[in-house]
Amino acid sequence: MKENYLLKTENAERLYFEYAEKLPIIDFHNHISVSDVASDRRFENLYELWLASDPYKHRLMRICGVDEHFITGDAEPYEKFVKYCEIFPYLAGNPVYSWSRMELSRVFGINELPTKEKAGYIYARAGEMLASSEFSNNALLRRFNVEYQSPVASLLDDLSLFDGKSVAPSLRGDDLLAPTKELVAKLSERTGREISDKSSYIGAVAVMLDRFAELGCHFADHALDADFFENDTDGKKTDMLTSLGVEYAKRGWTLLLHVDAKRKTSARLARLAGPAGGYAAVGGGFNISALCDLLNAMESAGGLPDTVLFPLNMNDQAPLAVMQGSFSEDGTPSKVQLGPAWWWCDHALGIENTLACISSFGVLSQFIGMTTDSRSILSFVRHDYFRRLLCSWLDKESTVGEWDLPVGIQGNIVRKICYENAKSKIIK
Amino acid sequence: MKENYLLKTENAERLYFEYAEKLPIIDFHNHISVSDVASDRRFENLYELWLASDPYKHRLMRICGVDEHFITGDAEPYEKFVKYCEIFPYLAGNPVYSWSRMELSRVFGINELPTKEKAGYIYARAGEMLASSEFSNNALLRRFNVEYQSPVASLLDDLSLFDGKSVAPSLRGDDLLAPTKELVAKLSERTGREISDKSSYIGAVAVMLDRFAELGCHFADHALDADFFENDTDGKKTDMLTSLGVEYAKRGWTLLLHVDAKRKTSARLARLAGPAGGYAAVGGGFNISALCDLLNAMESAGGLPDTVLFPLNMNDQAPLAVMQGSFSEDGTPSKVQLGPAWWWCDHALGIENTLACISSFGVLSQFIGMTTDSRSILSFVRHDYFRRLLCSWLDKESTVGEWDLPVGIQGNIVRKICYENAKSKIIK
Amino acid sequence: MKENYLLKTENAERLYFEYAEKLPIIDFHNHISVSDVASDRRFENLYELWLASDPYKHRLMRICGVDEHFITGDAEPYEKFVKYCEIFPYLAGNPVYSWSRMELSRVFGINELPTKEKAGYIYARAGEMLASSEFSNNALLRRFNVEYQSPVASLLDDLSLFDGKSVAPSLRGDDLLAPTKELVAKLSERTGREISDKSSYIGAVAVMLDRFAELGCHFADHALDADFFENDTDGKKTDMLTSLGVEYAKRGWTLLLHVDAKRKTSARLARLAGPAGGYAAVGGGFNISALCDLLNAMESAGGLPDTVLFPLNMNDQAPLAVMQGSFSEDGTPSKVQLGPAWWWCDHALGIENTLACISSFGVLSQFIGMTTDSRSILSFVRHDYFRRLLCSWLDKESTVGEWDLPVGIQGNIVRKICYENAKSKIIK
Repeated sequence: MKENYLLKTENAERLYFEYAEKLPIIDFHNHISVSDVASDRRFENLYELWLASDPYKHRLMRICGVDEHFITGDAEPYEKFVKYCEIFPYLAGNPVYSWSRMELSRVFGINELPTKEKAGYIYARAGEMLASSEFSNNALLRRFNVEYQSPVASLLDDLSLFDGKSVAPSLRGDDLLAPTKELVAKLSERTGREISDKSSYIGAVAVMLDRFAELGCHFADHALDADFFENDTDGKKTDMLTSLGVEYAKRGWTLLLHVDAKRKTSARLARLAGPAGGYAAVGGGFNISALCDLLNAMESAGGLPDTVLFPLNMNDQAPLAVMQGSFSEDGTPSKVQLGPAWWWCDHALGIENTLACISSFGVLSQFIGMTTDSRSILSFVRHDYFRRLLCSWLDKESTVGEWDLPVGIQGNIVRKICYENAKSKIIK
Repeated sequence: MKENYLLKTENAERLYFEYAEKLPIIDFHNHISVSDVASDRRFENLYELWLASDPYKHRLMRICGVDEHFITGDAEPYEKFVKYCEIFPYLAGNPVYSWSRMELSRVFGINELPTKEKAGYIYARAGEMLASSEFSNNALLRRFNVEYQSPVASLLDDLSLFDGKSVAPSLRGDDLLAPTKELVAKLSERTGREISDKSSYIGAVAVMLDRFAELGCHFADHALDADFFENDTDGKKTDMLTSLGVEYAKRGWTLLLHVDAKRKTSARLARLAGPAGGYAAVGGGFNISALCDLLNAMESAGGLPDTVLFPLNMNDQAPLAVMQGSFSEDGTPSKVQLGPAWWWCDHALGIENTLACISSFGVLSQFIGMTTDSRSILSFVRHDYFRRLLCSWLDKESTVGEWDLPVGIQGNIVRKICYENAKSKIIK
Repeated sequence: MKENYLLKTENAERLYFEYAEKLPIIDFHNHISVSDVASDRRFENLYELWLASDPYKHRLMRICGVDEHFITGDAEPYEKFVKYCEIFPYLAGNPVYSWSRMELSRVFGINELPTKEKAGYIYARAGEMLASSEFSNNALLRRFNVEYQSPVASLLDDLSLFDGKSVAPSLRGDDLLAPTKELVAKLSERTGREISDKSSYIGAVAVMLDRFAELGCHFADHALDADFFENDTDGKKTDMLTSLGVEYAKRGWTLLLHVDAKRKTSARLARLAGPAGGYAAVGGGFNISALCDLLNAMESAGGLPDTVLFPLNMNDQAPLAVMQGSFSEDGTPSKVQLGPAWWWCDHALGIENTLACISSFGVLSQFIGMTTDSRSILSFVRHDYFRRLLCSWLDKESTVGEWDLPVGIQGNIVRKICYENAKSKIIK
């Protein structure tokens, strides 16, 4: 990977090297293992670090027709690694191809194209390095310059491994909308509160939210899957989410809404690959109007939290970017906004469309910027990927559109998007 | 603003300077103040002309978290102006940034970037010029070379200020679909006709339509908001619109359908900023199939007017561009067509997507071209913005696609899109 | 047409000339006349070959307001031809403009721009050539290097004209979902089987499917029109399609799903121009989630055939490309995939978006590539159009994205997409 990877012009390089590159990372939503942080895990081999916990890579292996045996099955780690290298050159164009190469290059200095032939060399070379303490879990985090990250946790999860500073929990709130009896019972026990109706339930939830807050939590996320509103025929889930939104707003949290995933696709594949197997599809036709009504309901009920919208259908980036102008608050830039390109959309196409939409339909400089949403610690290279694309995009757009804007202000915009805007959400 | 602003190649410059630049403007749908035309209004200061009546700018101030006090509140004009300048450089990328600079440059020769520091200078400099009669409302219209414009008026509005030549009314027909008793009573009084059923109602409406026609009206617009068809459960509004469409067709008018706005977003903001406060969102999922059925119903009922479709969801530009081929009439090119990028879509991204969609799915040379749809008289710069983008786009596409087309024919296409196609709608 | 038409760089040229150009064509879905093949038809004049059977060209004439008299009416062939030439230069930007020029250039060596003035010359020149046996139907097929094509046939069509090798039938299955009594009676007669319920019906259909298979059939297509799922209120059609899918899977066939056409637009135009008149629109809002459920139902019922999805709404290309990862099978790359840009989407914009979507959301190298879906034998130039765009796109993306991929592997990817992936569907 060349130093100026993805940077095509002098100005793009200047924006990257003078402004973007050295900024710390705020990764406000991800799924990395907190216990790996707590134990400062060491990785046995490249398979463990690079492949085992990356469903994106598994998905591509399946698309290429690789036997499940070599993906999540009983094959040996090295066999699985070789299979991935074998198909690797034919993944070009997919972002995972680019990320994979960045991961090898930035962490191990390995710039060779993974192929069947090169597999042995790469495995051995990376293996040697992984034996050193410079490649422990937390050494990698330091290398990536991660200042703050908030892996998701459910309301009743054990939070003891969060340090409350650089690793704070973010709340995954999905199971709170239609709580099971079991959840209610446990919640009652943990909080010592009797729960008899919605109001007392919210009261008990609030006690737990305060514990999250003490541990540095600033974000709550909810999945609004493809048919969320259609399936909520009695409106109860929508109503509960409204009440939770008010609680988040009280605490100055930011609400992350992940919109339009269709999680039930091939039942066979779900059995085979497990819940995070990477086979989710896009619902299409998500009810944006109802989403807008939901935000208005929170506002009317006493408090709309800052809200970031993550559509899984790239087509929804444009209409959701418009919403930056539909809710606003004195003193809070970009109260409701389109978030960074999510999941399957997290590629150059999706990132550039995000930038184009926020910029064209709203105000780009207020954009909260990147988060990985990943299970793999190596995915922090995606911040670098994003920053390089951002600098190139800004340079290109300002040239084509003849913005006639001083480079210092362009630099400030880069700084806001890569760091400051996200930072402002955690120092509220 | 350089002479060749947005024009990157020699051929793009040729198309612009030889064909596009000097064509008069036909602005077939806007919201400018007819009384300002009738009185040839003078503007006290730059705030009045540039900011006061421009909800696009207000919206961006809100997105940046500026206090409403400085937007539509009690702050002094100059304070408001300074606030806008303060955030201005951070609006880059949004079309309002480009338009603002074009407005200052083309009207006042001010090419400086508005900033907090430059605010005083710009305000004073423009203020001096505004004191001269060369900057009156109508002097500005002449400067923009506006040949014909048709601000909207409701059926029973006072039309006495329209001159029927360069400023003709266009009908805003929304309140006609489910008329209030009050409207029916007034209509009956104004026309001297008894209204007892749908047929007599349409008859009375037709009397008023003839008055509009006498004053040079050639366009009627209707908003098909996000849930238009879903909310019209008994089909009465659709039916009424069908009947009105037939009336428009009889008079050779063109029907403008503004599609998929979600006007109810933040109730709080609506109270604060008023009905034209710029907080409308995009509904998403508009029923295109029902729209198609509506047009067929008009045709079957005796007359489909020429129709221009304005989707607020940029994604609908492609499917609606296809409809250029779905309805047709001997001797009428482009009977039903996608219109210019509307409202939040009116930026380089939306304009270029419009051109790409009409071109790819239909016949670009038949495109009706630009209209501002604006409340601000300075918005006529958007025609220039559009023309420059059009010339650059045509040049680029014809080069990349190797059209091998004589420049004279390219020039004719420019002329048709910038002027002749719209003109053909008003000389029917 | 220059040799390097649409190829802008040395690498794009290399990919095209060394890999793409000489590959045979597999046209797995089209509507060409099998009787023209069987009789090796000779064409009287350019009108017959170029215009008469091309509804795409008719559609553009209508959009330009040409009288139906000169399109499908009683005008003389030459008059119709002149009318098309007259509007021709103003069609630039539409793919039919590019294809028309490719057709004249590649088949007749005519590189002049068709215009009113040039019409006589072009007609005469092509007419001379058509008199020679080198321009018979099958001579043209050989010229285009068509290895395999499968025009559609309905279940009970006469298949005697298919040679079962280079011209094999593909099944158009639409009338099988809710079979008329007449169809059931004929099917019973043809197969000698009693049909009393769904099971015996499917059994009889299966007999016919075997006959198709004997004649080299490997593809079945179904139209899922705009409101397919909404109109199938009792689920019977969906259920029948599920059962048919299982039958296709048993035979190793590939299922082609054509999604979201809105075929009923102008009733007047339908009467005037006939069922294939080119006035179909895009429905919009197609139920992608239900489509996903349908595929899962087939899989659960015992067999999901390889499936190719053809959305008519370009916006659905992204969500449908994601589905490449939602269904998979050991040993079958790209079990379910987005197909080539279909019908109105089959232009540079749609093709490049297809490539971008499959590449970004899935694995481009597994893409099945082009098919014409055309009634006109000249449409095979579209494979060349596609291949040139593909090579240019690959070159550009690999450069911009710094793929750092050996040219040989790029070439393999080209070969897979232009030929091998489609070939793999017919040698199962």
